[in-house]
Amino acid sequence: MRVCVLSGGIGGARFTEGLRSTLGPDDQITVVANTADDIWLFGLKICPDLDTVMYTLGGGIDDERRWGRAHETWNAKEELLAYGVQPDWFGLGDRDLATHLVRTQMLSAGYGLSDVTRALCRRWDTGVELLAMSDDRVETHVLVDDDESDSGQRAIHFQEYWVRLRASVPVRGVVVVGLESATAGPGVVDEIEQSDLVVVAPSNPIVSVGPIVGVAEIREALRRTTAPVVGVSPIVGGAAVRGMADQLLSGLGVEVSAAGVGRHYGARDRGGLLDAWLVDSGDEAEVATLREAGVEAHARPLLMSDDALTTALAADTLEVGLALRDRPRP
Amino acid sequence: MRVCVLSGGIGGARFTEGLRSTLGPDDQITVVANTADDIWLFGLKICPDLDTVMYTLGGGIDDERRWGRAHETWNAKEELLAYGVQPDWFGLGDRDLATHLVRTQMLSAGYGLSDVTRALCRRWDTGVELLAMSDDRVETHVLVDDDESDSGQRAIHFQEYWVRLRASVPVRGVVVVGLESATAGPGVVDEIEQSDLVVVAPSNPIVSVGPIVGVAEIREALRRTTAPVVGVSPIVGGAAVRGMADQLLSGLGVEVSAAGVGRHYGARDRGGLLDAWLVDSGDEAEVATLREAGVEAHARPLLMSDDALTTALAADTLEVGLALRDRPRP
Repeated sequence: MRVCVLSGGIGGARFTEGLRSTLGPDDQITVVANTADDIWLFGLKICPDLDTVMYTLGGGIDDERRWGRAHETWNAKEELLAYGVQPDWFGLGDRDLATHLVRTQMLSAGYGLSDVTRALCRRWDTGVELLAMSDDRVETHVLVDDDESDSGQRAIHFQEYWVRLRASVPVRGVVVVGLESATAGPGVVDEIEQSDLVVVAPSNPIVSVGPIVGVAEIREALRRTTAPVVGVSPIVGGAAVRGMADQLLSGLGVEVSAAGVGRHYGARDRGGLLDAWLVDSGDEAEVATLREAGVEAHARPLLMSDDALTTALAADTLEVGLALRDRPRP
Repeated sequence: MRVCVLSGGIGGARFTEGLRSTLGPDDQITVVANTADDIWLFGLKICPDLDTVMYTLGGGIDDERRWGRAHETWNAKEELLAYGVQPDWFGLGDRDLATHLVRTQMLSAGYGLSDVTRALCRRWDTGVELLAMSDDRVETHVLVDDDESDSGQRAIHFQEYWVRLRASVPVRGVVVVGLESATAGPGVVDEIEQSDLVVVAPSNPIVSVGPIVGVAEIREALRRTTAPVVGVSPIVGGAAVRGMADQLLSGLGVEVSAAGVGRHYGARDRGGLLDAWLVDSGDEAEVATLREAGVEAHARPLLMSDDALTTALAADTLEVGLALRDRPRP
């Protein structure tokens, strides 16, 4: 079986761990990761979502933070602070730095981000194929209030909003710079078309999944593919399972609920993304609301609190997806 | 008083510490550091001699190794090894990395190495002015035997010879790439001309001092300046005080002795570099040999084994230099 996961960072990486556990050695998992969180800092190309997936599946992730490297030290960062160089808010660990150095040097040598990602992954033995959604530069910027600006607003990089401001200020808009002209990363369209199932991971719908499905070639492939597209809600009980998505969503008019995100994605047979949407068992009451909006929803336990629950969620997702696949399409 | 020191790494940095101790707050020390050891690694510009001087005088040096940062960790290096990227022999510490990141980013932004060095030094409060000998790319390459090459030789970067091979193979020649067209770094010529004394630090004559005085504008300024030029021998008792200079020198036909290096530099009034040359008290027998070759030599304790001895050597050097200055020139 071939499964293609559209993923942001933490939630998608964790979900894919479950998928890897529940699938066998002959199955094939491809993760298409968001690259719109990427940022250039200190002359280095940093790809938070690609790295979170790579480190998580490669066993190198810090299990507490769920981002960055295990056994990390922060001496280079401390020194950068001592030099007074900005920004001072990004978590750049010493071990992590090596990844960015190799990546940046390969990019400078003319390799594409997909080639670089493949080269980095050789070390990590992730058991999946990790693809960049695009080799083109795509960057999510967030519009926030700024009294000192003539327009009353300014655009900041998503990382600044997320890491420095900890998503604590109102979001007036999101602009994904470069998205309109971005082409899909090598292999992405083929994978979506040839997979048996496409999973929209429990990732942020605006800044993680949004940019991936915003790439025109990917959007078209998702419309075209015969594979069912099954999404897993990142919202459980009316709040983001991890991270600080609540404010970002509500600021953009997306209701912070499993139903809200499901409606935001929309039903595939009505021009949206999803053939089916998994909401948490505790949100079962939302299933009916979703069905009214044309989104086929299923209630399952979504919390990936331990490995067994994570594997069970992946198995549930496969089950829902394969049932759709076996069902004759209208 | 203004003193200008031509310096490689460890020896020159240590000597300058002594000079700073013996001079007062109204005196001015400028260090012109060799940049021909510089190397690009992992996309970063690394300047070993500039950094050794900066870290030593800024109190950030590792006191045992005498290069790199105190309280250093090596996690990024370990990770680079895990990725299998080369070279694996260069000592790239996590704290040190920050310096190279700041430098590389400023160079990429279009600043010259001198500007970058000044910016880095603001943090370190070295008490001296540290100048790059040149902002142009100059790189020392060493010719070594290579049976697999048609010519029987190949050129390797000095760092590879020094760090990877630990100077353990015969040297067939030294080529300082870019030296002929290099211009002096901003401020260097003025400083040599306006100083009261120029000191040739106890640094490697071939690969540290050689490139500095090999820059045409610097060579001319050293001929022109009214300041006496006093050198301190890096060879004591027929061996390099630190490092592995012996083989490098003998391979290039320079006798490994205080007299050998003194003759290699030559007397200024005979077209060479030196007005006076300090040899170790234990090498006093060489003073007569040097005088025969026209080099005025003085025997003083040269070993900088502790702070007091280092300060005393700097004071001796000043004394010899100022005596020359007060003497009417022919």
